[in-house]
Amino acid sequence: MSKTIALSLAAVLLASVSGAGIAQSLKDEPIQPIEPAKVTNPGLVELGKKLYFDPRLSKSGFISCNSCHNLSMGGTDNLKTSIGDHWQKGPINAPTVLNSSMNLAQFWDGRAADLKAQAGGPIANPGEMAFTHELAVSVLQSIPGYVAEFKAVFGSDTVDIDQVTKAIAAFEETLVTPNSRFDKWLKGDKTALTAAEAEGYALFKDSGCVACHNGPAVGGNSFQKMGVVEPYTASSPAEGRVAVTKDEADRFNFKVPTLRNVELTYPYFHDGEAATLKQAVNTMGRIQLGKSFSDDENAKIVAFLKTLTGEQPSFPIPILPPSSDTTPRPTPFGM
Amino acid sequence: MSKTIALSLAAVLLASVSGAGIAQSLKDEPIQPIEPAKVTNPGLVELGKKLYFDPRLSKSGFISCNSCHNLSMGGTDNLKTSIGDHWQKGPINAPTVLNSSMNLAQFWDGRAADLKAQAGGPIANPGEMAFTHELAVSVLQSIPGYVAEFKAVFGSDTVDIDQVTKAIAAFEETLVTPNSRFDKWLKGDKTALTAAEAEGYALFKDSGCVACHNGPAVGGNSFQKMGVVEPYTASSPAEGRVAVTKDEADRFNFKVPTLRNVELTYPYFHDGEAATLKQAVNTMGRIQLGKSFSDDENAKIVAFLKTLTGEQPSFPIPILPPSSDTTPRPTPFGM
Repeated sequence: MSKTIALSLAAVLLASVSGAGIAQSLKDEPIQPIEPAKVTNPGLVELGKKLYFDPRLSKSGFISCNSCHNLSMGGTDNLKTSIGDHWQKGPINAPTVLNSSMNLAQFWDGRAADLKAQAGGPIANPGEMAFTHELAVSVLQSIPGYVAEFKAVFGSDTVDIDQVTKAIAAFEETLVTPNSRFDKWLKGDKTALTAAEAEGYALFKDSGCVACHNGPAVGGNSFQKMGVVEPYTASSPAEGRVAVTKDEADRFNFKVPTLRNVELTYPYFHDGEAATLKQAVNTMGRIQLGKSFSDDENAKIVAFLKTLTGEQPSFPIPILPPSSDTTPRPTPFGM
Repeated sequence: MSKTIALSLAAVLLASVSGAGIAQSLKDEPIQPIEPAKVTNPGLVELGKKLYFDPRLSKSGFISCNSCHNLSMGGTDNLKTSIGDHWQKGPINAPTVLNSSMNLAQFWDGRAADLKAQAGGPIANPGEMAFTHELAVSVLQSIPGYVAEFKAVFGSDTVDIDQVTKAIAAFEETLVTPNSRFDKWLKGDKTALTAAEAEGYALFKDSGCVACHNGPAVGGNSFQKMGVVEPYTASSPAEGRVAVTKDEADRFNFKVPTLRNVELTYPYFHDGEAATLKQAVNTMGRIQLGKSFSDDENAKIVAFLKTLTGEQPSFPIPILPPSSDTTPRPTPFGM
């Protein structure tokens, strides 16, 4: 056997062993890395991106999807509860759009099965964008730039709400955040976390946080009662999953939020009452796990949570096609 | 003389003649092309971009510079008058930020000498972002990502409002829109305009529009009375330049708006009362020039105006540094 072949064989063997080692260690972890988005229909995604940023989908012409799920701010508005049409105070904290395609359902109570079903909600909600699907479609249908783009993507001359929500959902599916320091660590780069951060992860697992916060999104994959060990008094009127199932057993059950990018998605909980990660970790420990974390433990868990910030979606700001002379004008102040 | 040298000489001569020809034709035109921005301090511009998109400069945490000067929509909000804190109705139409560095002064009444002086206005205006400079600075000072970036740019550990407005202005100075079809035509590409568009430009010049709408920004370089030939009844309470000079002769004098990207910056006039370019051209002809354009003339002028849409600023959406545990929280509802 030549020296070259021998070395190559050795390299292949090493790679297999090391690959298997990583695969094994990944399999043993309750959290899996986020994978980059695969775009199969770039035209659909581009159209959805424009719609996501277009305030003409609101009655006022002022509120877009990006107003409350701001991609400059972790896909949230960083407010306790959102601001809707005429400055109405929303009933609940806006969840992040980042990695939301991994959620088992959408909204805190899971009332939308998927992103497409979710996208139509705020447009027609009188407390949010305060429009109707019919009016939103009539606005888009009057804009030549959109009509051409819908035609190129869907092959049809008429725009409908199904196309609109499909495009927005397709864009939202691209909003994943791979390559966080934690994911690098998961994949084998043991230098990616500091000792304190790794200890924080161990505490996170050992304390039971991973019972609900697991999977690639570190949450988003189950409904759980808020206040298992100790009741939680919310500042929000939201009832949780019972609003959907009408089953009293689901009262105050909420979708477990993703912890990906949690450093960016403050304030926390469905009512936004926890301003900081320190508070959120303390409250969760107490009411969900019956644990009182020491300051040192809390700091380590928070340090770990901050390693979950991944690469934020990066793309040029979309340039929206202008309205035409026949486009219905927004009515921010009365009719 | 060799054939090659002779050909080269001929090419040089031709180039000179043609260059001189373009220079001459440009000199004769009342409108000059927009030149691309020259960035001398990229760190300052990047910081300014983040601040421009950051709603934490408002009391509510919901309104940023980009809310009313939206770079997805021609640097405007496409509303008659803007929406401010608590959904207050603004007194005036938000002018475009595009090419605004070319304005002789800022705001419709020119009350700010330059972009830096302008940038501080809306932050502290109770009807707009409703914050104070002191509170805005204290928010920024509490955000480690910003503190590091201000330090890198200004060499100082403390943030002040002068740095904030300087950075925003530096970003705004990059928001120019070169390479419109009209500019290509100006520079010698006679195929860049259709016959109707070129006729529209001739009408624009011959009718006297260029008396006020001239220079690279096609406006922005003088104050003029709204309603020279026939009085204009505005829906806005704005008094114009007299509010600054206290000289009654300046009553209802407004800064002539730029017509660059005018296809994107509807509705028109300081009160936003003209919904379409057709209306705006008709009204301007009547009240400023005593002219009644035929439908055909109006359509040609509008066709010309639409050739003034240039390349829109393109850059990745900025990712804002997260607040820290000590950052004062926004107070959108009360306080």
